[in-house]
Amino acid sequence: MKNIGVIGGGLIGASWAAIFSKSGFNVFVYDPFPDVFDTYKSRVTSFLEELKSIDETINVEESLNRIRENVTVEDLCSNVEFIQESAPEILSVKQELFAKLDNLAPEEVVIGSSSSAMPISSITQNLKGQHRCIITHPANPPHLIPCVEICPGENTSKKTIEKTKEIFTASGASIVNVKKEIDGFILNRLQGALLNEAMRLYSDGYASSDEIDATIRDGLGLRWAFMGPFETIDLNAPGGIKDYISRYGPIFVEMAKNQTKIPDWSEEAGEKLELERRKILGHDELEGRAKKRNQLLKSLRKVKIDNGEA
Amino acid sequence: MKNIGVIGGGLIGASWAAIFSKSGFNVFVYDPFPDVFDTYKSRVTSFLEELKSIDETINVEESLNRIRENVTVEDLCSNVEFIQESAPEILSVKQELFAKLDNLAPEEVVIGSSSSAMPISSITQNLKGQHRCIITHPANPPHLIPCVEICPGENTSKKTIEKTKEIFTASGASIVNVKKEIDGFILNRLQGALLNEAMRLYSDGYASSDEIDATIRDGLGLRWAFMGPFETIDLNAPGGIKDYISRYGPIFVEMAKNQTKIPDWSEEAGEKLELERRKILGHDELEGRAKKRNQLLKSLRKVKIDNGEA
Repeated sequence: MKNIGVIGGGLIGASWAAIFSKSGFNVFVYDPFPDVFDTYKSRVTSFLEELKSIDETINVEESLNRIRENVTVEDLCSNVEFIQESAPEILSVKQELFAKLDNLAPEEVVIGSSSSAMPISSITQNLKGQHRCIITHPANPPHLIPCVEICPGENTSKKTIEKTKEIFTASGASIVNVKKEIDGFILNRLQGALLNEAMRLYSDGYASSDEIDATIRDGLGLRWAFMGPFETIDLNAPGGIKDYISRYGPIFVEMAKNQTKIPDWSEEAGEKLELERRKILGHDELEGRAKKRNQLLKSLRKVKIDNGEA
Repeated sequence: MKNIGVIGGGLIGASWAAIFSKSGFNVFVYDPFPDVFDTYKSRVTSFLEELKSIDETINVEESLNRIRENVTVEDLCSNVEFIQESAPEILSVKQELFAKLDNLAPEEVVIGSSSSAMPISSITQNLKGQHRCIITHPANPPHLIPCVEICPGENTSKKTIEKTKEIFTASGASIVNVKKEIDGFILNRLQGALLNEAMRLYSDGYASSDEIDATIRDGLGLRWAFMGPFETIDLNAPGGIKDYISRYGPIFVEMAKNQTKIPDWSEEAGEKLELERRKILGHDELEGRAKKRNQLLKSLRKVKIDNGEA
C-alpha cells in the first residue's frame, strides 16, 4: 500500500493529505473546484507544521513532495489503492461521487467516506462495489484529533475492513470499529446526546450558554480529554465501575426518564444563542479562535504523549 | 470573611480544605469519625502540593497552618462564616446534618452542600434556616477541577447567593450559577445524558466500552477540555452557531427522537463492564491510575493557564 487518493481540497481534505503524506503515503488530490488549490499548499504546510510540533520526526518538506495536488479524478482512481472522500455532507452529492468512483477505480481499490453521520449503505445502496465502501469518519480537525470511526455497512467485505484498519493504523489514528450501522455513528451520537441536554437546559432557563459551557471546559472536559466516560466512572467509586453502577445507576435511569423532551433547535433558538456567543466572541474573532483551538489541541496532545497516554 | 468550616475529612472534604486554606481562609474541620484524621494531614499536603504545581505563589506550609483539623461541630459552628458540607451522598444523612448545623450555627452563617445531584430544598425542607442553605457542588477532585455549581433553592436568599459567590470567587472557582432547582444540576445532567447514550450503544453491541471511551478521550474530549459544547459548535460552521444550527439542528432533533430508550444500568450490565474494564486496568491498578489522572489534570490545567484560558 503506497498511494492514497484524497477527494476534496477543503479543510478536511487538506488535513487528510497532511496525515497520509507524513505517514509515508503518496497522496493524489482531486477537487472539482480547482480554485481551492490556490491556497492549498500553504494550508497543508501549516497542518504539517502543527503535526511536526507534536512529533518532531516528521519531515515537512518530504511530506509535501509526496502530495500531487489537482490531478483528474481519472488519474487519481488509476493510481491509488485507497480513496478518502471528503465532499460536502449532502447525501445526493456523496451518492453521485461514489457512483463515479466505483465506476472509475479498479476493483481492489477501497473507498472510505469522511461522512460524519450518514451510514455507508445510504450512500452506496445501488452500487456494484458496495463491498469495498466504508465509513472512515474523523473528528475536526483530523490531523490534531486522532479518533477515526471505521463503520462498515452490511455489505462491506471483511477484506475492506482489514485494509482500512491497516491504513489508519499506519497513519497513527485511534481506530474505533463501529460494529453495526447507525446514524451519527458513536462520536456524534455522544455529542448529540450531550448537546440535546445542553439545549434543553439552556431553553428552560437553567443557565446561560457560557455557564453550561463552563461545566464542560472547567469541569467534565478536563477528565474526558484523556479518559472516556466509562473509565471516568470506573475511577469514581472505590470498587470500580461495578461499584459505581450499583451506587449511581438508578440516578441515571431516573435522568433518562426525564431527558426525553425534543429540544428546541429552531432558527429562533439559533438566533438567541448567536447573540449570546457574539457578546463573548465577535464574528471577526471566530477565525482567530479556531487557530487558538488548534494550538491548544496541539499542546494537549503533546502533554498526553509526554505522559505516555496516546 | 475569614473563617470557613469544612464538614468531612474524606477525599472531597480534604480537597476543600486545601482550596480554602491556599486562598487565605482559616479552615475548621469536623468529621464524626476521627480516624479519618490519621492520614488527613498528608492527604491535604499532597493536594496543596498539586495546587502549587499549577500556581507557584501558593505557600504549602502557611496554608497548612491555617487548617484546624478535628474540631467539634460546636466549635466549628461558632467560629466560621461559611460551612462547606461534604458528607456521604445519602439524603437522610444530609438532612440530619443540616438540621444540626442550622441549630448550632449563628443566623448569618451560610451553609453550602457538596451534593452532586440532590437539590438543596430536598435536604432543608423542614428547616427554619432554609434561606441560608445552598448547593455548592464541585467536580472530582475539587482542587484540580475549577467548576463549582452554585444552586439555590426557592427559599435561598439573595444575600446567601452573593456571599457564596464571594467565597468561591476568592477561592479561584469557575462558578456556574444554576438558576432553578433540578436533579443533577447541570454538570451531572450533561454527564448523565452522555453516559446514558454510551450505555445504550454499549448494550446494543455497537462497540466495546474502550472503543466508546476512545471517541471521547481521542476525540471530543480534546476540544471539551477547553471549550464547552456551545463554543465547539460555534467554531464548527463558517458562520458561527446560528449557521451550525441551521445546518445540523435537524440531525440533533432526529437523534433526540431515538435516544429515548431507558438504558440498562442493571447489576448484570455492571458485571459485564467490570470484566471489560479489569482486562484494561487491574483492580490493584485503580489507585495508581487515579493518581495518574490527577497528574494529567494538573498538566492540562497548566497548559490552559499558560495559554491564557483559565
